[in-house]
Amino acid sequence: MNSLERKLPHDEANHPSSLVAEFDRETPLALDAGVELAPFRIAYQTYGTLNAERTNAILVCHALTGDQHVANRHPVTGKPGWWEVLIGPGKIIDTERFFVICPNVIGGCLGSTGPASINPETGRVYGLDLPVVTIRDMVRAQAMLVDRLGIDRLFCVVGGSMGGMQVLQWASSYPDRVFCALPIATGARHSSQNIAFHEVGRQAVMADPDWCGGNYIEEGRRPEKGLAVARMAAHITYLSESALHRKFGRNLQDRAKPTFGFDADFQIESYLRHQGMTFVERFDANSYLYMTRAMDYFDLAADHGGVLGEAFRGSKTRFCLVSFTSDWLFPTEESRRVVHALNAAGASVSFVEIETDKGHDAFLLDEPEMFAAIGGFLRSAAQAAGLEDGARP
Amino acid sequence: MNSLERKLPHDEANHPSSLVAEFDRETPLALDAGVELAPFRIAYQTYGTLNAERTNAILVCHALTGDQHVANRHPVTGKPGWWEVLIGPGKIIDTERFFVICPNVIGGCLGSTGPASINPETGRVYGLDLPVVTIRDMVRAQAMLVDRLGIDRLFCVVGGSMGGMQVLQWASSYPDRVFCALPIATGARHSSQNIAFHEVGRQAVMADPDWCGGNYIEEGRRPEKGLAVARMAAHITYLSESALHRKFGRNLQDRAKPTFGFDADFQIESYLRHQGMTFVERFDANSYLYMTRAMDYFDLAADHGGVLGEAFRGSKTRFCLVSFTSDWLFPTEESRRVVHALNAAGASVSFVEIETDKGHDAFLLDEPEMFAAIGGFLRSAAQAAGLEDGARP
Repeated sequence: MNSLERKLPHDEANHPSSLVAEFDRETPLALDAGVELAPFRIAYQTYGTLNAERTNAILVCHALTGDQHVANRHPVTGKPGWWEVLIGPGKIIDTERFFVICPNVIGGCLGSTGPASINPETGRVYGLDLPVVTIRDMVRAQAMLVDRLGIDRLFCVVGGSMGGMQVLQWASSYPDRVFCALPIATGARHSSQNIAFHEVGRQAVMADPDWCGGNYIEEGRRPEKGLAVARMAAHITYLSESALHRKFGRNLQDRAKPTFGFDADFQIESYLRHQGMTFVERFDANSYLYMTRAMDYFDLAADHGGVLGEAFRGSKTRFCLVSFTSDWLFPTEESRRVVHALNAAGASVSFVEIETDKGHDAFLLDEPEMFAAIGGFLRSAAQAAGLEDGARP
Repeated sequence: MNSLERKLPHDEANHPSSLVAEFDRETPLALDAGVELAPFRIAYQTYGTLNAERTNAILVCHALTGDQHVANRHPVTGKPGWWEVLIGPGKIIDTERFFVICPNVIGGCLGSTGPASINPETGRVYGLDLPVVTIRDMVRAQAMLVDRLGIDRLFCVVGGSMGGMQVLQWASSYPDRVFCALPIATGARHSSQNIAFHEVGRQAVMADPDWCGGNYIEEGRRPEKGLAVARMAAHITYLSESALHRKFGRNLQDRAKPTFGFDADFQIESYLRHQGMTFVERFDANSYLYMTRAMDYFDLAADHGGVLGEAFRGSKTRFCLVSFTSDWLFPTEESRRVVHALNAAGASVSFVEIETDKGHDAFLLDEPEMFAAIGGFLRSAAQAAGLEDGARP
């Protein structure tokens, strides 16, 4: 049994444990790179039931290494869905009232067409032959999925981090199809520092000889060490200095004294190594390259002559932005920039900055203030959308 | 010609282009790891002339990847000394008045005994056989060098970052031998986040198959890719988000449009790759492991029952600390913690926080405010030391 078989007992990239929408050669996906992708497919999950009026759908957009398993046990890790704290029966996003759709993004590795998928033209794994995709491409594909599901207008589009970028792109590309939008811990562009961290991660992956120029699956190898280093570096940016200090400080791991060596003497080292090791078991290295690149390229203002407000001109969508005080990957300033642009565009917008030391990761955690903000916003939007009584299917 | 010969035309680790002090088996260096290192050597440079009273010596301690070439052209890179903006004839640290000593630290790779040195016991390169060294070990070795030079008391010990850690250690270990101390952009301990970044760098090096378990020099190989990734990650922490935004923003590198690929589309990517590539030409990968580990282990309070003030109890040394507003590797808070401890210990201390967006790297740059602070402090200390007239040799 080689490493590939051991580590990926389920080939989720080609045999996803979820619903799948297939798009054939007649319905290509036009990519920003200037080419068309066809056939392609989107793996997705749904929770709850679409009402008769088809007005209670909430689209959830996942982050960099997320997937469609937002509110069910993950098929590879066996862990709860990544946003089960927020989404489920009786929860803030109540699947007894709303029809929740969560697609795996194009370029991902849990079943939507991505670099680990089999290229139907060649019968071989795409690898780097897959064109580079953008946030707009992801959203374009999601719009085709929403069409396929027979839904004209989404009640809400919600997501954090890269998911938040998709929310902003949805509101900009399809203003009439988004009643309300919840971009969390995100921004309308990727900063220079963020691109820098992504580039370090990509270089770590590509420096691993087991990456094989991107062809590792065909070669029966996996760049696990490089991908683990990439994840470790990224993981630091998801936390805050104060959270690290509070959780780990300079505590030693299972020892009374330093060993004067290069083992994981400190708890923070042991924690990071664990993060790296578990990540490689569930994620494809090339997909990591594609996801980071999509975020790097995201710059909504640039698509509108450099004026961010133009991206939302005339929008009727109601917006609620959420940021976290200790998030240094997407600092509050980036959310505020979006708020100002929405104000300039005359859009309806509310904004909540939440005091926490948990850093960027806060959006995935049990954050009562965030839940209160999202819950309140959705209640008021549901009323405005006439969903209060009609929401239950 | 193999890669090793191409990249390291001068074997500075064993044939340094500088002065060298040899310490034989009779004068071992006692290490914190509980073993003795003997024989060992310290490569160093001096500038200016020691006065007759031997009272005008300034010891300069270098940072993580620095070396003894503080104020002369670097023998490998051909670039000016790393602190020539500050040190030289007529400069703030005036080599016409002061005798400046700059040693390469123990564990380094420019001539002091380090992992790239030949182990005289075996005739082979030390590699990981060299015991792990600490900041206190570096300082202990420097004290032996200062003895060797016949100097009882240093007028000043100065350094930034890891150099600043050595300054604090000097003042704590040898209070009577340090008239004044200038720790810049530093702290009395390495934070959890800083250990985390170091661990990522080490993992990147050790993941490179050309690292060969630390034995790459004997194997005729070099873990260039891993070390470059480590340097890229570290380099981000030396800058500030705002400096990156100002210098690079989202500007593309020599192209009008993104290429939708994984080349260095953005200037920041190209810049980081360049930083990684040039670094591996001048630095030894194992030495990088040792240097980062020494910083990780540094915790001056822990050596004094957890009370930082105790590290400086009864000190007569005059201190001046300098921090930078945008330094997130050693934020002002870390300097302030040292200032409070020095206050508690009844020491003489001044403290300057300098407003700049240049991040941690500011201490190496042309920072007029820093120069003014250092210059003013040294003038006043020289007067107090009776050096005003007697300084010129």
